[in-house]
Amino acid sequence: MSDRVTTVATVTLSGAQQVLAAAVEHAATLDVPVCVAVADRAGNLVAFARMDGAPLLSAGLAQDKAYTVAAFGLPTHAWWDLIKDTPSLLHGIVKTERLVIFGGGVPLVVDGELVGAVGVSGGSVEQDREIAEAGASALA
Amino acid sequence: MSDRVTTVATVTLSGAQQVLAAAVEHAATLDVPVCVAVADRAGNLVAFARMDGAPLLSAGLAQDKAYTVAAFGLPTHAWWDLIKDTPSLLHGIVKTERLVIFGGGVPLVVDGELVGAVGVSGGSVEQDREIAEAGASALA
Amino acid sequence: MSDRVTTVATVTLSGAQQVLAAAVEHAATLDVPVCVAVADRAGNLVAFARMDGAPLLSAGLAQDKAYTVAAFGLPTHAWWDLIKDTPSLLHGIVKTERLVIFGGGVPLVVDGELVGAVGVSGGSVEQDREIAEAGASALA
Amino acid sequence: MSDRVTTVATVTLSGAQQVLAAAVEHAATLDVPVCVAVADRAGNLVAFARMDGAPLLSAGLAQDKAYTVAAFGLPTHAWWDLIKDTPSLLHGIVKTERLVIFGGGVPLVVDGELVGAVGVSGGSVEQDREIAEAGASALA
Repeated sequence: MSDRVTTVATVTLSGAQQVLAAAVEHAATLDVPVCVAVADRAGNLVAFARMDGAPLLSAGLAQDKAYTVAAFGLPTHAWWDLIKDTPSLLHGIVKTERLVIFGGGVPLVVDGELVGAVGVSGGSVEQDREIAEAGASALA
Repeated sequence: MSDRVTTVATVTLSGAQQVLAAAVEHAATLDVPVCVAVADRAGNLVAFARMDGAPLLSAGLAQDKAYTVAAFGLPTHAWWDLIKDTPSLLHGIVKTERLVIFGGGVPLVVDGELVGAVGVSGGSVEQDREIAEAGASALA
Repeated sequence: MSDRVTTVATVTLSGAQQVLAAAVEHAATLDVPVCVAVADRAGNLVAFARMDGAPLLSAGLAQDKAYTVAAFGLPTHAWWDLIKDTPSLLHGIVKTERLVIFGGGVPLVVDGELVGAVGVSGGSVEQDREIAEAGASALA
Repeated sequence: MSDRVTTVATVTLSGAQQVLAAAVEHAATLDVPVCVAVADRAGNLVAFARMDGAPLLSAGLAQDKAYTVAAFGLPTHAWWDLIKDTPSLLHGIVKTERLVIFGGGVPLVVDGELVGAVGVSGGSVEQDREIAEAGASALA
């Protein structure tokens, strides 16, 4: 291999299912039915679960949260501070396709490297974030 | 309940995950990495897995196959015989959004009732159908 | 790293620009202005050029050809033989978003591994394929 | 030629590649991996590069910034002052497809004439603008 090719670490289905199971389990302890999506390093869906009673609207949001994290590298709850004091960004970037700027999307990090993302939707943004972090910690 | 309201039987996350696991296991015995999607009675995604090495293109197709089955009630491999001798259907219905007319989408039936669907993509249409049927049989 | 994470080899910008330059140079010797797109292993765009006089329509087609190859692993000219004798596929799969089933999309392979794809559009399918292969050979 | 026909000056691939190279070089000196897109006078993509490590989300934003500039004639950072005091514009125009109202899109001007645009995304809006201007100055 030369500088023409690089290698990218990315979550496997096995790893994604561990994240999914940990997130669903944590959501169940909170009694908050959510949708959970796990994306690989390139933002493509690897694993998904909609818990019984989770809002249908959340299915897309969970996937978009995971995509946002994989596509930009930050947890979705970090976006607000990034844009709130720049009015042109605040008004202008929110419409970006699949970009979610509120909590619930969290990076999957292994050995210090971003390898994918988990997105959760269905509870409050604080609950979604907490559940996503519980999922992510299963991999760390 | 009166005649103004009805109930719909639909697969749970637990049921969907059994279908998913059985399909993934069968695909592994065939050594064919696929995407598997399980939809509820309304066609909405409940559970999804992309096996390591499955084509990215299959992620959408698996979901569309499950949707097609839930949305019309037939396995996707039944569509061709239904439309092939009616040119207006053959040319006119195929473009319907999310409609898939080849094998790999199979109904989930419990107690004679359609409760959801499983869609598989990544192998040949025969393999996809066989894997989807292996998944569906986990619920029957 | 465990089985929770895998590594994927993918083309760099430097590698993609070598492919792009080789394809554009070959197209110039044929006097056929084309669009050339290079995608990474996950199908995301890395490098693109529209030669002067290339059809505008080709800009999207070149990107879709590269995406198709990365997302399914086969050169786009291999799709026709794959589907021509199965009427349900022939009629049913062509509408898949971004799927291109004619020549001009070619895998980028380094050390026997798929690391991305190049898509060319603007000439005949034979010319597009020849130009894409000239591009791909710059990386091999 | 008569008054029924006019000519439009527009950047060539060669010119676009000079802009691209200058922008990428400047981004490298800042150590900010970005996506760079060059559009012609009509807003259509001519050349594109995604630097290694640039956010995936930036690929579309860079192209939309270049489009916005070509399609309206102003740098994208000029939009905010244009709309901020007119609530109907502020709330009503931002959703326009592909319109970007924050920095990073810069006109390409030759002999006083708009001939295309460069769009940069991946850093802060100030960095994106600085990199785009470095690219544009290669053509001036």
